[in-house]
Amino acid sequence: MNNIMNERLNKKVVLLTNDDGIKAKGLLTLYNTLKNDGRFDVHIVAPENERSAVGHAITVFDPISVKKEYNNGDFYGYAVNGTPADCVKLAVSAILDRKPDILISGINRGPNLGGNIIYSGTVSAATEGTMYNISSIAVSIDNLKDTDYSYAAEFAKKIAALIIEKGGLPEGTLLNINIPDIHPSNIRGVKITCQSDSKLKDFFIKRVDPRGRDCYWMDGEFVEVCRREDDDYSAIKNGYISITPIHYDLTDYEKIDYFRNWGITKDI
Amino acid sequence: MNNIMNERLNKKVVLLTNDDGIKAKGLLTLYNTLKNDGRFDVHIVAPENERSAVGHAITVFDPISVKKEYNNGDFYGYAVNGTPADCVKLAVSAILDRKPDILISGINRGPNLGGNIIYSGTVSAATEGTMYNISSIAVSIDNLKDTDYSYAAEFAKKIAALIIEKGGLPEGTLLNINIPDIHPSNIRGVKITCQSDSKLKDFFIKRVDPRGRDCYWMDGEFVEVCRREDDDYSAIKNGYISITPIHYDLTDYEKIDYFRNWGITKDI
Repeated sequence: MNNIMNERLNKKVVLLTNDDGIKAKGLLTLYNTLKNDGRFDVHIVAPENERSAVGHAITVFDPISVKKEYNNGDFYGYAVNGTPADCVKLAVSAILDRKPDILISGINRGPNLGGNIIYSGTVSAATEGTMYNISSIAVSIDNLKDTDYSYAAEFAKKIAALIIEKGGLPEGTLLNINIPDIHPSNIRGVKITCQSDSKLKDFFIKRVDPRGRDCYWMDGEFVEVCRREDDDYSAIKNGYISITPIHYDLTDYEKIDYFRNWGITKDI
Repeated sequence: MNNIMNERLNKKVVLLTNDDGIKAKGLLTLYNTLKNDGRFDVHIVAPENERSAVGHAITVFDPISVKKEYNNGDFYGYAVNGTPADCVKLAVSAILDRKPDILISGINRGPNLGGNIIYSGTVSAATEGTMYNISSIAVSIDNLKDTDYSYAAEFAKKIAALIIEKGGLPEGTLLNINIPDIHPSNIRGVKITCQSDSKLKDFFIKRVDPRGRDCYWMDGEFVEVCRREDDDYSAIKNGYISITPIHYDLTDYEKIDYFRNWGITKDI
């Protein structure tokens, strides 16, 4: 028993979460890849249901229920009736008995690129991990449908091992990783990128509901804006893995002096 | 009729939204202040109910219902069964017939400071406006209970007029404004600030629900981290109005070269 405990304590603690929900194939592939490696003590705390586009939502008014999830009879992880950010908060504050060495959010079905990452539950979970000073990465694959996640899972595992070897990520920084969904032999390499200004152009389909109220369904198309050679969108479209270092300090430092020069007083 | 239309077209279009809901006192005070000024064509598109802590959530799977809201028999605005970001998308894409010259989100009951702004529906609505290239500001008052919003509303109105006079905000930049809840004569001035690292330290209260499932309620206390003299938290606590220029480019540019030096390949 002591040997088992010691063996566990020697392993690096990995927390997995996502926004596609605990039953997602991308999460399962990542879990199996890490588990089979043998170096990691792997824990899943993930939303019970799909929680895409929840942004950095947290549940502050309602109780959050947590239940154990089993996979082929084996304990698999904790299913949380909350958002990806809730999952991370709960995992660290209430569920796990050790602080994770690394957090991996994903593998997300669909890319998280450009301005759209502010809507991303996948990225928000990794951001939440960073706020707890846990080295955190978000991993997404550029396909909106389920696909073969095995290369992406291997890549995520190796990045996790590298980060641990480097002594962790710099405080306050997380990595947003997007992987093209092409045969691994066709992937041209890895680019460290900046966030593009690509975003969804929204339009709404209007209907009248059975009670006579106006209702709108959101639809949208991806619009690529300000394409730069070193941005996340270009990397993916050119067959590279994109790794964007991001942070949650939203200050636009370059504009501080500009606004100081406006000379605003309390009476304006 | 033409005169009324011309008069309207000469006014600057202001879109108001919030995350406290369309019935909030902070929104009403702001609306009346702008309306009574005479220079503005004021429109409200706000959540039907309180939507605090929703982060930058958007509603992608469900229809969003919209109904007209009246105040003392007069048309007041559109109540949306969605998030603050939904409100902005709908207002611009489907409800308003002219693009707003300015968007004001608030006045929020409670401050939006430091790391907590990533959970803020108030800030996310202003971010959404910025993504549509609308000059956008988020305005919050440092009191979690309803208070006298009249000074904050006047200040917001004057800032809006100033921004319009300056030809708008720089593209991609929004202003996160926090106002101390003290007598206006005691406000010491205005500081252009950076985002502090203040955040909530979470803890959870665990209960078992009637169906035997583990349930958690989130609680938390505000923790002030890395206090700098020029950050948002210090400004408010010292009796200043805090104006932080923020943006939605999350790239941590300072770390790009650091990670390029890791020399990551597709096989790591």
